[in-house]
Amino acid sequence: MNQYDNFFHLFPPADSLSGVQKRVAAFAEAHASKEVPIVFVTSGGTTVPLETNTVRFIDNFSAGTRGSASAEYFLELGYAVVFFHRKHSLRPFHRHFGGDSLRLFNEKNGKLELEDKRLIEMYQKYEKAIRSDTLLMIDFVTIADYLHGLRAFAQALSSLGSRVMFFLAAAVSDFYLPPSRMSDHKIQSGDGSLVLELSQTPKMLKPLVSEWAPKSYIVSFKLETDDTILLKKAREALRNYSHQAVVANLLATRARRVTLVFRDSEQVITLDDADVCAGNAIEMKIADSLAHFHKIFMSAT
Amino acid sequence: MNQYDNFFHLFPPADSLSGVQKRVAAFAEAHASKEVPIVFVTSGGTTVPLETNTVRFIDNFSAGTRGSASAEYFLELGYAVVFFHRKHSLRPFHRHFGGDSLRLFNEKNGKLELEDKRLIEMYQKYEKAIRSDTLLMIDFVTIADYLHGLRAFAQALSSLGSRVMFFLAAAVSDFYLPPSRMSDHKIQSGDGSLVLELSQTPKMLKPLVSEWAPKSYIVSFKLETDDTILLKKAREALRNYSHQAVVANLLATRARRVTLVFRDSEQVITLDDADVCAGNAIEMKIADSLAHFHKIFMSAT
Repeated sequence: MNQYDNFFHLFPPADSLSGVQKRVAAFAEAHASKEVPIVFVTSGGTTVPLETNTVRFIDNFSAGTRGSASAEYFLELGYAVVFFHRKHSLRPFHRHFGGDSLRLFNEKNGKLELEDKRLIEMYQKYEKAIRSDTLLMIDFVTIADYLHGLRAFAQALSSLGSRVMFFLAAAVSDFYLPPSRMSDHKIQSGDGSLVLELSQTPKMLKPLVSEWAPKSYIVSFKLETDDTILLKKAREALRNYSHQAVVANLLATRARRVTLVFRDSEQVITLDDADVCAGNAIEMKIADSLAHFHKIFMSAT
Repeated sequence: MNQYDNFFHLFPPADSLSGVQKRVAAFAEAHASKEVPIVFVTSGGTTVPLETNTVRFIDNFSAGTRGSASAEYFLELGYAVVFFHRKHSLRPFHRHFGGDSLRLFNEKNGKLELEDKRLIEMYQKYEKAIRSDTLLMIDFVTIADYLHGLRAFAQALSSLGSRVMFFLAAAVSDFYLPPSRMSDHKIQSGDGSLVLELSQTPKMLKPLVSEWAPKSYIVSFKLETDDTILLKKAREALRNYSHQAVVANLLATRARRVTLVFRDSEQVITLDDADVCAGNAIEMKIADSLAHFHKIFMSAT
C-alpha cells in the first residue's frame, strides 16, 4: 500500500463525504456548461487530534486571510469558487464583519442599521454570489477531513480538466498522530512530561497532480519563516510534483510580498503603501496574475 | 526556584502587561467603590507554540462558549466583568452575530437593516455594558500570555478580596514546550517522524489561591472525556488547592449537565428540552448558583 492509501486506510472518510462530493460535481458542471472557469480554494489550517475523544490537537497558524480574500477576487474575475475552509476560519465577505463591527451599528426605530459603505458593498457582493450560485462553501476541521475532501472533490472536478484551478492556500499539517498512538481519552497530566511521536503526512500534491486532477491548473503554497530556504524549497516542490505554480511567502512579510514561482519564470508581487491606502490587498494581484496564466493554460489545452 | 517562577523565567512577560494590569486595577477599583462585585472570567484555549517563529502550535479544544455565555449572565446579575479570553474566540454578545447572520440583513435605502429581535437585544445589552463600563475585554494567545495575565491581574484585584470571583473557564494546556527544545524556524518535514517532548505546566491554581488572590472566591473547571474519573478528579483538585468550587463537566454533555463541586456539598445542574426551547443556556444556571454562593462568601468575610 502506498503512503496516501495507508493514510486513508487509517482514517476512514466521514459518512457525509460522498454527498458533498456530488454537490461539488453538480456545482462545477453547472458553471462549466456556461464556460465559466472554476477555482477550488483551500483555506485555513488543519488540526491534528492528539486524542480519539479530542480535547487537544496540533494546529497550524492560519486565520484564513489569504484564502478568503483570494476567493473574493476570483469571484470578481468571473470564476465560480469552491471554498474548502477550516470551520470558523475567515470566509469571503463575512470576514469584513468580524472584529468590533458591532460598534458600527445604530439602533433606529427598533432596528439595527449599518451605514458603513465598505460593509454594504461586501454584503452586496456576498448576496450576488449567493443569488448567482457562484460560491460553494464547504468546511473541514482535521487533517483527515482535509485530505479526504481534497481527493473526493478533485475527482469530482477532474472531468472539467484545464478549466479548473486548484489554489491550495490551506496550511496543511506536515505531521499527524496515527490512531494506534492516540490516547482514547484526554491525556492525563499527572505523569510527568509528555512525549509525542508524530508521523509524516504523505505529500498529497503528488497524487493530486498525477492521478486526481492531472489536467487541471494547480497552484500550491510554500510558507516559511527562514528566507534563506524559501525560494529553494518552492522551486524544489515544482520540480518534484510537476504542477503549474508555487506561491512562495514568508510568515513575517506575507501580506506585502509573495513570489510566484513557475517552471520557466518567477514573478515577485509586492504591495506598497499606496496600494494599502487605496484599499488594495495583495490577494487581488495574486488572483489577477494567476487568472492570466490560467487563461493561457486553458487556451493551450 | 519553584515550578511557576521557573516558567515565568523561561517566558518573559510582554512589554504591554504592566499597562494592562493598571487598567484592570482601575476598572476593579471603580466598581468596588460602588459596591459592585467583580468576576474575572477566563475563556477559550491557550496555545503552546512549537517554534519560536510560530507556524505550528498545540491547542486546546474550546470555542469559548462557556466563558462568553457566562460573562453575559454575570453582567445581568450585576457583576462587573473582566473577560480574559483567547484572541478570536467567542466574546459576550458578539458571539450571537457569528455564523450565517449576514443572511439576516436586508438592504433598504442604501443601508443594511437587521430586524431580528434576539440580535437587537444582544446589541442593546452590549451597548449598555460598554456605556456603563462594566465589561473589560483583554485577550491572550499562548499559555505564557495566559499565565502572566492570570498572575498580574489577580494581583491587581487582590486588594478587593472576597468581592472578586475568579471563574476560570479557559482550557489551559497541561503541557508546554520549553524554549530550549523549540526550533527557531518552521520545523522541516523532510526528516521522517517528529518527536516532541513536552513539559508539564505548573499548576497555577496553587499560587493563585495561596499568594495572588488568597481572599477571593475561586472557581476552577475540570473537563474530562471519561466519566469514571470526572468527579474524583474534581474533588481531588478541591482538596489539593483549597479553593471554593470546581465546575466538573464531560466534553460530550457539557452543554446539558455540569456538577458544581464544593467542599461540603455538590450540586448537579442540568438543562432540559423545555429550558432549551425557552432559550435558556446552562451558563445562566451556573452563574446564578455561583453568584448565590459568592454572596454568602462575601457576607461571611
